[in-house]
Amino acid sequence: MSLYYNKTRRNTVQRRAGRARYDRPTIDAILKEGIVAQVGVVADGQPYVIPVLYALGEREVFVHGSPLSRLLGTLREGVPMCLTVTLVDGIVLARSAFHHSLNYRSVVMLGTGRQVRDREEKLEALRLIVEHVVPGRSGDSRGPSEPELEATEVVAIEIDEASAKIRSGPPVDAAEDRDLPVWAGVIPLAMQADQPIPDKGCVAPLPAYLPAYRRAA
Amino acid sequence: MSLYYNKTRRNTVQRRAGRARYDRPTIDAILKEGIVAQVGVVADGQPYVIPVLYALGEREVFVHGSPLSRLLGTLREGVPMCLTVTLVDGIVLARSAFHHSLNYRSVVMLGTGRQVRDREEKLEALRLIVEHVVPGRSGDSRGPSEPELEATEVVAIEIDEASAKIRSGPPVDAAEDRDLPVWAGVIPLAMQADQPIPDKGCVAPLPAYLPAYRRAA
Repeated sequence: MSLYYNKTRRNTVQRRAGRARYDRPTIDAILKEGIVAQVGVVADGQPYVIPVLYALGEREVFVHGSPLSRLLGTLREGVPMCLTVTLVDGIVLARSAFHHSLNYRSVVMLGTGRQVRDREEKLEALRLIVEHVVPGRSGDSRGPSEPELEATEVVAIEIDEASAKIRSGPPVDAAEDRDLPVWAGVIPLAMQADQPIPDKGCVAPLPAYLPAYRRAA
Repeated sequence: MSLYYNKTRRNTVQRRAGRARYDRPTIDAILKEGIVAQVGVVADGQPYVIPVLYALGEREVFVHGSPLSRLLGTLREGVPMCLTVTLVDGIVLARSAFHHSLNYRSVVMLGTGRQVRDREEKLEALRLIVEHVVPGRSGDSRGPSEPELEATEVVAIEIDEASAKIRSGPPVDAAEDRDLPVWAGVIPLAMQADQPIPDKGCVAPLPAYLPAYRRAA
């Protein structure tokens, strides 16, 4: 397992290059914590950005959907695509409007999709997607039937060119602003889970992985 | 003010069309609640999806950044772009893996950027961006100086073609699965703010809009 994904001209962060990271542990940790990825594809010169569930494999990201969806239909053709995951960690309030910012961690991945046709690989990718969203879940729910498998398209995207960009910490005001009588600091933000709501007619006990549900590692 | 944005072939939701909405109040509410938009542009045939802060204007969305950034440089040329905002509301656990889903609200907007050159319009757009992130904040912080204004590119994107897609509520299992001994229901998720963390040396009192900070309306 390589410690790095490729760094190329295309995925090299230019602005605020000090916030850029290219190492695999950093990139993988962001991909693991996110729930929704934003996938960009082009059709007739028009970019489309569509939110999707996903999962991180060994060196690929798996996405799934209906074979009839425009996105999956486009992705499985192997066209150039971009997959972005963004985690918002806080709002940075500076003394000057100009230095207001956001604490965030994002990954931008460039690649091409590959249709997953092999039955075992497809089952495993779908299992990974369920596990990505709720660790521990895949052993509980009924697995896909053959018609359900056929009604699901899975596309694997090799993580070839990827970069992360991270901002963290307090505001950075200009020296001459630091004594302004303006509150400055950070509002921490995080995706939080509330109490699980059982479905009508559900009599099964709450599984152990649910009350403890959280995204961060 | 029109109640609708345009519905065209390009922004008409095809899959799960019952989840689609085209009315302006629904779309505007999602744009107001989001913090980060994912902007898609194309360069040399390659789509890029980049997270940005933004604000909703009267009929435009404003984004900003460095004039040196690749994204802003591309957007101000008026190329076709896509702006997507996604809110994650919950994880939907069904009795079958196939019917697992996500509760979410998303907006996908197609359009072209317009460089904001007029000084007053630019100041107002920047004020809107600060207000979008923290309502009440723009009156407190020091406004932009002339060099800061010059070091900030603002692009307005007219909301022409836009659609929203929403899933909410409990899982929808097949009838024959409803008696399976599997817990089913929803884990509600929301972006939550924690206690504000003052910057080192900050002596100003905490403003009233901060302890009450939340994203949902």
